[in-house]
Amino acid sequence: MTQDTATRPATNHVEAPADAAFTAIASAPILETILDDVAVLVDECVLRVDTDGVSVDAMDPATVAMVSLSVDAEAFEAYDAPDEVLRLGIDIERLGDVVGMADADQAVRLAVDLERRTLHVRVGELAYTLALIDPDAVRSPPDRVDLADQFEATVGLPGREFSRAVAAADMVSDHLEAGVSESEERFYVRADGDADTVAVDVPAEDCTAFDSGPARSLFSLQYLSAVERAVPADDPVRLRLGEEAPVEVEFDVADGDGSVRYVVSPRLTRS
Amino acid sequence: MTQDTATRPATNHVEAPADAAFTAIASAPILETILDDVAVLVDECVLRVDTDGVSVDAMDPATVAMVSLSVDAEAFEAYDAPDEVLRLGIDIERLGDVVGMADADQAVRLAVDLERRTLHVRVGELAYTLALIDPDAVRSPPDRVDLADQFEATVGLPGREFSRAVAAADMVSDHLEAGVSESEERFYVRADGDADTVAVDVPAEDCTAFDSGPARSLFSLQYLSAVERAVPADDPVRLRLGEEAPVEVEFDVADGDGSVRYVVSPRLTRS
Amino acid sequence: MTQDTATRPATNHVEAPADAAFTAIASAPILETILDDVAVLVDECVLRVDTDGVSVDAMDPATVAMVSLSVDAEAFEAYDAPDEVLRLGIDIERLGDVVGMADADQAVRLAVDLERRTLHVRVGELAYTLALIDPDAVRSPPDRVDLADQFEATVGLPGREFSRAVAAADMVSDHLEAGVSESEERFYVRADGDADTVAVDVPAEDCTAFDSGPARSLFSLQYLSAVERAVPADDPVRLRLGEEAPVEVEFDVADGDGSVRYVVSPRLTRS
Repeated sequence: MTQDTATRPATNHVEAPADAAFTAIASAPILETILDDVAVLVDECVLRVDTDGVSVDAMDPATVAMVSLSVDAEAFEAYDAPDEVLRLGIDIERLGDVVGMADADQAVRLAVDLERRTLHVRVGELAYTLALIDPDAVRSPPDRVDLADQFEATVGLPGREFSRAVAAADMVSDHLEAGVSESEERFYVRADGDADTVAVDVPAEDCTAFDSGPARSLFSLQYLSAVERAVPADDPVRLRLGEEAPVEVEFDVADGDGSVRYVVSPRLTRS
Repeated sequence: MTQDTATRPATNHVEAPADAAFTAIASAPILETILDDVAVLVDECVLRVDTDGVSVDAMDPATVAMVSLSVDAEAFEAYDAPDEVLRLGIDIERLGDVVGMADADQAVRLAVDLERRTLHVRVGELAYTLALIDPDAVRSPPDRVDLADQFEATVGLPGREFSRAVAAADMVSDHLEAGVSESEERFYVRADGDADTVAVDVPAEDCTAFDSGPARSLFSLQYLSAVERAVPADDPVRLRLGEEAPVEVEFDVADGDGSVRYVVSPRLTRS
Repeated sequence: MTQDTATRPATNHVEAPADAAFTAIASAPILETILDDVAVLVDECVLRVDTDGVSVDAMDPATVAMVSLSVDAEAFEAYDAPDEVLRLGIDIERLGDVVGMADADQAVRLAVDLERRTLHVRVGELAYTLALIDPDAVRSPPDRVDLADQFEATVGLPGREFSRAVAAADMVSDHLEAGVSESEERFYVRADGDADTVAVDVPAEDCTAFDSGPARSLFSLQYLSAVERAVPADDPVRLRLGEEAPVEVEFDVADGDGSVRYVVSPRLTRS
């Protein structure tokens, strides 16, 4: 076993690129939250990086649901971004697997090598070099549409109440109706199965926020259930609703230094 | 999105029926225990409700094993039953899924609407309306047979000892022999596999109860293993046995305000 | 049910053989560690028993990886072995299932009946009799080869660092390169996937032991991943490496009263 071999010179010490276009240090749980919240809708995404922080806009393949996530630079233990915006194409599951190797609360170091189109991820002694995807090859949502004029009502709920309503509806049907009863001042969810029905009624006084208005729409549970999986049980979520309008589901992440917003389009009303 | 729609008037507030034939409030764990203990043998059952409490008698499809469960009205936080007996046909898994959405120790409200043949289940803000099954369409066990004269011995054991004996026997064979050695004053279990054997011997002094008598029978592990899954590890179980006779496995539920009794028929002795 | 039956006299009390060739009492976790550490490579093994303790030498079916485990008699709560060496053929999963029925830290009693070729396992009231396998029918590794002259470097690492390096490499490739950089005084691991790469570099000062020397080899992850599953996260492991040489992975078990040593052969270098 002493013959000459012609392997690659693998023993060169692997360092993060000295001229990294972007470097950041974050606790593993914050990165996992970011990745998990986007992963419920898409496999790949474009991570936008600028001096203010990072953000993702993504739309599911059927273009029914959208996620917009942003996390401020303050959420990171260290953060050094260029003045111009960077667009990084990310394989979410793959990066999630690497981040998942960190111990709880262990710091994860990120560094982008634009020349080689790679993202360096460092967890303790482990350096993982992830090939970036061409961001133009990642399906992007259309430019942010201003939905504000479609939303007529706002409802704040504990995350677990929202999750329970969606999960229960999913037990009896493939869609649900959600809306606001202006006369009775409450938020409601309804789902009708062949035999069983689900009804959730939350009076205004039990909501963490309640801004009444005409709102009633049907939603496919395929998408709301995906969103529900990302909702934190112990934090409030904010819903915005309208008449045969999308629903917006928004909540804070990264201890308030970031937020996630899902928008799910309504189904056509059965008329 | 302002066109007139002709959807059902779903925004009517869903209330439990004002004239409910039966209403009760119970902690989620007690309801889960009731449902789980019956579910090991059957998918559907008839829940009998009267002023004393609720009870279930059910028999597995092969009519080898039977479960009889009763829980006193005292086990419920609130309980209002009619004078005459109600027979409610229940889809156990479906009701279990709803009850399973409650937080630990959260109160679950039940209300029966006889006119619509529905069971209303309320967990926090969530109202789930479950269609009742026609009780006459649910396979029922024959009238309670008095097996007392077949039982010759009684043995009390910690639940975990019973479970371990059955689980170990299941590793080597598809049936076991259980009985009492009168001469040696002990309860025993035997299972013989192709290569391995299992023997459990519990002397009278290690039993929580021991009333000796001639007892030896073979039992299919398919049914005893199902029963074993319902046995509480930390509470005692009472076994009653005879010669080529059924075995009765009984234990308390609902903090002593109820009990479950399984009866498993013996296999024919290999002779 | 009172007819005469001709079943076997199963009610004879089952005792461990009075003239057992070997008896021992051990805590369940120690036995589980022994079995688990061997099970990552083989299904059956020969357990060697003598007055000093027990040991296993086994080789995986493809003869790429080997495990050598020994646990001193002192690790057992009681231990009574014959002067001559006993060779016991064991079905590892089957014995593991029985030991797994013990509660945490519960004592497990072992007794060997050479005449009947059985191993008696006692857990509380449960006696399990396991048929021994003919030890000559179990594939055995060749006589211990002295690999000492192939090892040029020794590296001590926390178990979790070794595990993380192997698990990360497994995410991108089916093999890894491991070695020592003499010039930079560090242990390294490299794995190259189609798109992603993994690099682990542990400087000498971060190693729990570091004896430098020329070392660089390729290893199939199929075998290193199996070994990795057995490595304790919180204890140090000792690696010995050479140039296109096997890797030895060694760590203590049974609170230091035993040790496990894996040897994995190198893959041919791509040249």
